[in-house]
Amino acid sequence: MRVGELSRRSGVSVASIKYYLREGLLPAGERTGPNQADYGDAHLRRLRMIRALLDVGHLSVVATRDVLAAVDDPEVPLFEALGRASGTTTATPEPADGPDEAWTAAERTLAEHVDAHGWQVSDQNPAWDTAVGVLATYARLGDDDLAGQLDLYMRVMEEVAESEVAAVVDRGDRARTVEGVVVGTVLGDTLLAAVRRLAQQHQSLKLLGETPTHPRG
Amino acid sequence: MRVGELSRRSGVSVASIKYYLREGLLPAGERTGPNQADYGDAHLRRLRMIRALLDVGHLSVVATRDVLAAVDDPEVPLFEALGRASGTTTATPEPADGPDEAWTAAERTLAEHVDAHGWQVSDQNPAWDTAVGVLATYARLGDDDLAGQLDLYMRVMEEVAESEVAAVVDRGDRARTVEGVVVGTVLGDTLLAAVRRLAQQHQSLKLLGETPTHPRG
Repeated sequence: MRVGELSRRSGVSVASIKYYLREGLLPAGERTGPNQADYGDAHLRRLRMIRALLDVGHLSVVATRDVLAAVDDPEVPLFEALGRASGTTTATPEPADGPDEAWTAAERTLAEHVDAHGWQVSDQNPAWDTAVGVLATYARLGDDDLAGQLDLYMRVMEEVAESEVAAVVDRGDRARTVEGVVVGTVLGDTLLAAVRRLAQQHQSLKLLGETPTHPRG
Repeated sequence: MRVGELSRRSGVSVASIKYYLREGLLPAGERTGPNQADYGDAHLRRLRMIRALLDVGHLSVVATRDVLAAVDDPEVPLFEALGRASGTTTATPEPADGPDEAWTAAERTLAEHVDAHGWQVSDQNPAWDTAVGVLATYARLGDDDLAGQLDLYMRVMEEVAESEVAAVVDRGDRARTVEGVVVGTVLGDTLLAAVRRLAQQHQSLKLLGETPTHPRG
């Protein structure tokens, strides 16, 4: 199909499609003339995924390109690729003048928990520094008690991740599995955060006696 | 203390402090002269929280101001205020031309799950539309199987939220509870997402036989 039909079928403007082509998010179509190219269903699917990552997953254009590049490289282990790419949006750097006391203590805490749970993870996974950064920030703010949730977070996420990995492996072929990993991981963050807010509201009603100002239904 | 000392003790530049004052994130100091104001420990704490929300929680300046305004208003129920404010960063709007079939079906699915779990939540909570938006996007992408995780997400988040709410209530006074809710909710999203990535890596090693390229330790 031509770019006009790709735009109509995807609901994405021609200007945006050309921008994604320029930025390397969308692979070029097959040239059919000096100013014409032909696009297929793969472009349509990719375009829908780009919009989902940008609009629902709230990734930046750069992070979206990194995620898609990792997806397209069969040499990169799936979850490592995804961790590396999605880390661009969540990484919390060490303090500029090197690790402070809070950082070092937070890293020790995380290492102890990971060992206690028997997890095998890479310290090149940007999620490692992100987790350390949050724990260090709790300590710097005097909110150390919040770090007490870490063990619970790890226990529930171990169960969540097992179910998620099993579900995408069930899809059979690698392309569909990869797509499920990307969409499920990035959009799953958003869904989990939303479900957490709803659960917090429910629990605050129970524990604090707060009343929703507009109850549902 | 003067603004210079506030800057030294917080590690935040004077220019940034003046920007936060202008944008209403930081309350004004006590005027001591035509071009001079005095700041206290409350300003120092607030400044640390602003930086945590911006740098670690990745909130926008506008979202940070909304969160802090809700925190400072004792009339607003705690979790509802937080939901309303943090929703500015995660909300997924309905399609511009009204709810489509995917949206309507997703909303029905979420309502059934919320009823099944016996949750009392407000449909004014922006997390509601965020969750519907993710489920609708799964459907539009042909990734409906990913919505199969919703029940598990709700079960684990019910446990997480119960523990989190209990922990901040344990703090005793409202100001410290509010601070714990804000920091724990916003930074907790980041920590949970990071822990999920580490858990996914661990589970992909187990299920897919992938090997971390740089094992920790």
